[in-house]
Amino acid sequence: MRQIKNYIAAASWSRALVVVRAEAQAINPEIRKNEEKVVDSVAAAELSKPLTAYCRCWRSGTFPLCDGSHAKHNKATGDNVGPLLLKKAERVTSYI
Amino acid sequence: MRQIKNYIAAASWSRALVVVRAEAQAINPEIRKNEEKVVDSVAAAELSKPLTAYCRCWRSGTFPLCDGSHAKHNKATGDNVGPLLLKKAERVTSYI
Repeated sequence: MRQIKNYIAAASWSRALVVVRAEAQAINPEIRKNEEKVVDSVAAAELSKPLTAYCRCWRSGTFPLCDGSHAKHNKATGDNVGPLLLKKAERVTSYI
Repeated sequence: MRQIKNYIAAASWSRALVVVRAEAQAINPEIRKNEEKVVDSVAAAELSKPLTAYCRCWRSGTFPLCDGSHAKHNKATGDNVGPLLLKKAERVTSYI
């Protein structure tokens, strides 16, 4: 009888573990884990393309830039994350 | 004896559940879940402040802007995520 109690406790303990892990789950598995906080900055003046996509799913191989990895992540998890798109300021050339 | 087998199966099943959930875990718990993919775009020309922080932890109350929520998330999970900072292009005024 004691043995069954242990296993019930183990089953409920691991269910609690599942709940705990689900709530407090890291979202960055591998990117720059040696850094205390991964912060990137972009100078608007240095944007080269009309539109540049920046990663927000922490799975990109070209982080901080987006490489489309969010599609695979969303498919595997049912999530709906996507990138931040930066639009370069158009150079205004006036001909007077 | 049969009962013990069931509980062993339950305990190992739930351990498998823990592993599965840890690998394929969504990172956006609540933001715009009615959208298939949350994509935001920013026009560099419309940046109002010298420096604007954009959220990458999917916990900000002012998403897509950062409100510092990554600090609480990092503390609770041991993660190291942080925002993307956009630096406004300085207006070059030349006095000739």
